[in-house]
Amino acid sequence: MTDASPLAQDTLPPSVRRVGILHHPRIPQTLSLEGELADLVRTEGGTVWTASAWDQGALVRQMHDLDLVVTLGGDGTLLRAARSAAPRGVALLGVNFGRLGFLTELRPDDAVAGMRRVLAGEGWLDRRAMLRVELWRDGVRLLQTDGLNDCFVGRGSAPRTVHLDTRIDGAAFSAIAGDGLIVATSTGSTAYAVAAGGPILAPDTPALVLAPVAAHVLALRPLVAPLTAQIEIEPRAESPSVLSVDGQVNLDLAPGDTIRVMCSPHQAVFIRLRSSTYFFETLLERLR
Amino acid sequence: MTDASPLAQDTLPPSVRRVGILHHPRIPQTLSLEGELADLVRTEGGTVWTASAWDQGALVRQMHDLDLVVTLGGDGTLLRAARSAAPRGVALLGVNFGRLGFLTELRPDDAVAGMRRVLAGEGWLDRRAMLRVELWRDGVRLLQTDGLNDCFVGRGSAPRTVHLDTRIDGAAFSAIAGDGLIVATSTGSTAYAVAAGGPILAPDTPALVLAPVAAHVLALRPLVAPLTAQIEIEPRAESPSVLSVDGQVNLDLAPGDTIRVMCSPHQAVFIRLRSSTYFFETLLERLR
Amino acid sequence: MTDASPLAQDTLPPSVRRVGILHHPRIPQTLSLEGELADLVRTEGGTVWTASAWDQGALVRQMHDLDLVVTLGGDGTLLRAARSAAPRGVALLGVNFGRLGFLTELRPDDAVAGMRRVLAGEGWLDRRAMLRVELWRDGVRLLQTDGLNDCFVGRGSAPRTVHLDTRIDGAAFSAIAGDGLIVATSTGSTAYAVAAGGPILAPDTPALVLAPVAAHVLALRPLVAPLTAQIEIEPRAESPSVLSVDGQVNLDLAPGDTIRVMCSPHQAVFIRLRSSTYFFETLLERLR
Amino acid sequence: MTDASPLAQDTLPPSVRRVGILHHPRIPQTLSLEGELADLVRTEGGTVWTASAWDQGALVRQMHDLDLVVTLGGDGTLLRAARSAAPRGVALLGVNFGRLGFLTELRPDDAVAGMRRVLAGEGWLDRRAMLRVELWRDGVRLLQTDGLNDCFVGRGSAPRTVHLDTRIDGAAFSAIAGDGLIVATSTGSTAYAVAAGGPILAPDTPALVLAPVAAHVLALRPLVAPLTAQIEIEPRAESPSVLSVDGQVNLDLAPGDTIRVMCSPHQAVFIRLRSSTYFFETLLERLR
Repeated sequence: MTDASPLAQDTLPPSVRRVGILHHPRIPQTLSLEGELADLVRTEGGTVWTASAWDQGALVRQMHDLDLVVTLGGDGTLLRAARSAAPRGVALLGVNFGRLGFLTELRPDDAVAGMRRVLAGEGWLDRRAMLRVELWRDGVRLLQTDGLNDCFVGRGSAPRTVHLDTRIDGAAFSAIAGDGLIVATSTGSTAYAVAAGGPILAPDTPALVLAPVAAHVLALRPLVAPLTAQIEIEPRAESPSVLSVDGQVNLDLAPGDTIRVMCSPHQAVFIRLRSSTYFFETLLERLR
Repeated sequence: MTDASPLAQDTLPPSVRRVGILHHPRIPQTLSLEGELADLVRTEGGTVWTASAWDQGALVRQMHDLDLVVTLGGDGTLLRAARSAAPRGVALLGVNFGRLGFLTELRPDDAVAGMRRVLAGEGWLDRRAMLRVELWRDGVRLLQTDGLNDCFVGRGSAPRTVHLDTRIDGAAFSAIAGDGLIVATSTGSTAYAVAAGGPILAPDTPALVLAPVAAHVLALRPLVAPLTAQIEIEPRAESPSVLSVDGQVNLDLAPGDTIRVMCSPHQAVFIRLRSSTYFFETLLERLR
Repeated sequence: MTDASPLAQDTLPPSVRRVGILHHPRIPQTLSLEGELADLVRTEGGTVWTASAWDQGALVRQMHDLDLVVTLGGDGTLLRAARSAAPRGVALLGVNFGRLGFLTELRPDDAVAGMRRVLAGEGWLDRRAMLRVELWRDGVRLLQTDGLNDCFVGRGSAPRTVHLDTRIDGAAFSAIAGDGLIVATSTGSTAYAVAAGGPILAPDTPALVLAPVAAHVLALRPLVAPLTAQIEIEPRAESPSVLSVDGQVNLDLAPGDTIRVMCSPHQAVFIRLRSSTYFFETLLERLR
Repeated sequence: MTDASPLAQDTLPPSVRRVGILHHPRIPQTLSLEGELADLVRTEGGTVWTASAWDQGALVRQMHDLDLVVTLGGDGTLLRAARSAAPRGVALLGVNFGRLGFLTELRPDDAVAGMRRVLAGEGWLDRRAMLRVELWRDGVRLLQTDGLNDCFVGRGSAPRTVHLDTRIDGAAFSAIAGDGLIVATSTGSTAYAVAAGGPILAPDTPALVLAPVAAHVLALRPLVAPLTAQIEIEPRAESPSVLSVDGQVNLDLAPGDTIRVMCSPHQAVFIRLRSSTYFFETLLERLR
């Protein structure tokens, strides 16, 4: 993939100086690590801003003054920060207090050493495509948000079949009857979509995956479409349905709603210290 | 399969004389067909009781005075009637206003002719195993109900992962993380379970199927267990979860709840006029 | 499941005295363990017969003089011995030089201690249903053999689609187009069938599974049928196809051949020292 | 997708004048249609060359003198012609004597009218990515060929597990144990790969799919990689394995062989008269 690609793996920006650090309110150890990392950044001549990972509002207001956001927690913490950081082009570095995942880069024990390397200019940028999700009601765009993993349209509380009319670039794809439909980025292909039977997309694959959940038409298979695809989903009125983006933005849908999903103009930018083959190594580890 | 089998295909009881007919309140044609069938039964010397398929209470009260319940509607109508008829051993005959399914036996156009044959003693009995589902809370059995298709324990409204500890005959089966778990009879194996990736069970297979829905442990496969299996499901406290039986009995679960699923002592008994190979013929038709 | 069941788990026969031990010609350590086990059996007053696991002819001739066959090797060794032991009702004990599987009971380090327990009358009998496979050509039964795991009818060397007409109890099941069809016992459900997308059957499930391999009709799902099912498979003439039983008996099929698969009158009988929940424990281990 | 894309949908070349027509030796009607089409082309001032679809050598020799190859037959006929036409940039038009597929454009009844439209300059060009497949033995490239659908590396005649070490861009992807591995283009994603459980790729998705066939590691899922991916497959020595390209080029592999798969520099170019949404319409039709 050439440098001209929108998903190219770039080198690090010259100066990571303004660092935001997010601790997890329910994991006390993240607070002490936050302190350690803050000391390190200041020692190296940078500035530090800290907050709870749950204080999304504060993060959004601060974002224009940051070069890097470090999240201490799990995948959910990183997903939430990514949606705020991407529009500003702020880089992300995830420290995982669970097992090392596809997105987080450091374990707590490696966090200080890793941070030192990042401040020294080491590492590379792993740019990930994001989804733009719009909810249209009565001709008005009620919601527009970006997601790093996926967008789900499907059943609400009761396990009752929903019916979704789906179009790709204007062509009818399928009338899906089942629990719902996931549209996932390559990043999200290893999350909910793979559990629903979808394929795994290598991170730099310029494509989206549409994975039905428990579809009644047994011949219906997950579909992979170019990143340029324009997807429209219209739940039929019979059953209550919901929209969920990254499992974090959740809305009840009304009859007549249309959801539009496409590639976002923004990308999530992760700092990587591991080799560029980390994705396949992590995958192999999961398979064992 | 010998006559001693609990799932044997018997011949029809000598006299079907007391017939209940259920029309569907939303499908006007079912009312006129109800009238036609009622006239026929009376002409043939039988007695008739009619009601709306949605008046479950009336049906339960009437059941001890019936030999046969005829449902005019879809699969849902028949499922609901089956749960009331099974404890009394009352036979069922389904007339389907949609496409002919695995359970319903007659199309509206064939209903009068079919009814005439049934009153003449034609046909055979297709006995189907049912599930017994119990919900235990604080040492008390809060709910006990039977299901003909399946029982689902899983996520409520938001597409958020639930964690279910599952045991079969006391042995840990798996800690399921995902949308939930379906336990289905052979009858239910062609409904929600197959949409979730489960196998199809021939109707007289003395077995249950446990089919996870969108499970995160990718190696987890649907499990088929003997009809004698005792299954226990315990949702962990983290995420709200629900219990649903046949998609018709729905409850929110509380932390600490245990769901027990086993074979019911009751069977649903369907009158069949088609040949005993009807199941595979219907299956073939669906595949085309 | 009651004692009357053909799959009941019995207690050990009173006297295991005549022991056959099979070493693996390619694994030198199996020879020294064979010596150790033979000494133990003789010390305990039993008689010993030893041979290479590959000398199937010698094993068959010796079988009527044995109470128990101990196999030292892998699953293949045990499968082969099982087909010879089952018609005589001779029990089997597998020592696995790979990772512990669903069939083998002991690791090499535990083999002597385990054998001592067996000779002392400990353990229980795990009876497993087998398949009977018949190949009919020009009205003649050309082959009749039993299999513990599965029977495959499908493509030969080139990855070329075969077409199989399949009947269950005389009813057309499906015209399968693809790589082929596996018919597996519950024992074999964890082998080739699960790789092809089939469900896992708990060992005492009185059922067979029919799992298509890479079927072109996408709606076609694995089917579970009662153990009493009579299955017929007829490859159409277009493409060369093969028959394989337990991956060990392999034949090229000719146009017009019919394969019949049903439950064998014989059962494989394994001695178990682990608890009756060993199956689910092994399954859980595999999932991790 | 912009015109700069290697997969852009172009307009037709100004003059389709030199037309090759291939009939199917086993389908007599293709000969008479060949005559009708030839007459039409000559009437319109073009030149015609005809041959049997099985005479691959003649086609290759003639290709430099053709603007268009019309195939009368099935998908196999078109696949074979595509491998010869792509290096010369010659366009393809498929008339299908079976049901209309994803590649063929015309039914026999529509063939003359369709051909007339093509000669009049109607239609658009549907460019499809192809695979380049290389077989390396002892440091020498023994085979290099292009495939439009897929490349399979896997078991030979007996259903015996093969073990494949697989790398993507130098990173270990997985040690696949099973029947084999399919690498498919988006075009081939609807053929063998989808039967093996792979996703469907919309035609213009710049990606490949790696779909294992009957893999024993149950957690292994189909992988989608960018079209730029370099894939290496090395079968381990234990079991005989074969290489197959488009199901038409078949070779036995030797221990130590390496198969390299990447995007071919050539594309197959199909003339389309249907609207650009034909792919999803065909897909929908298949689902019904």
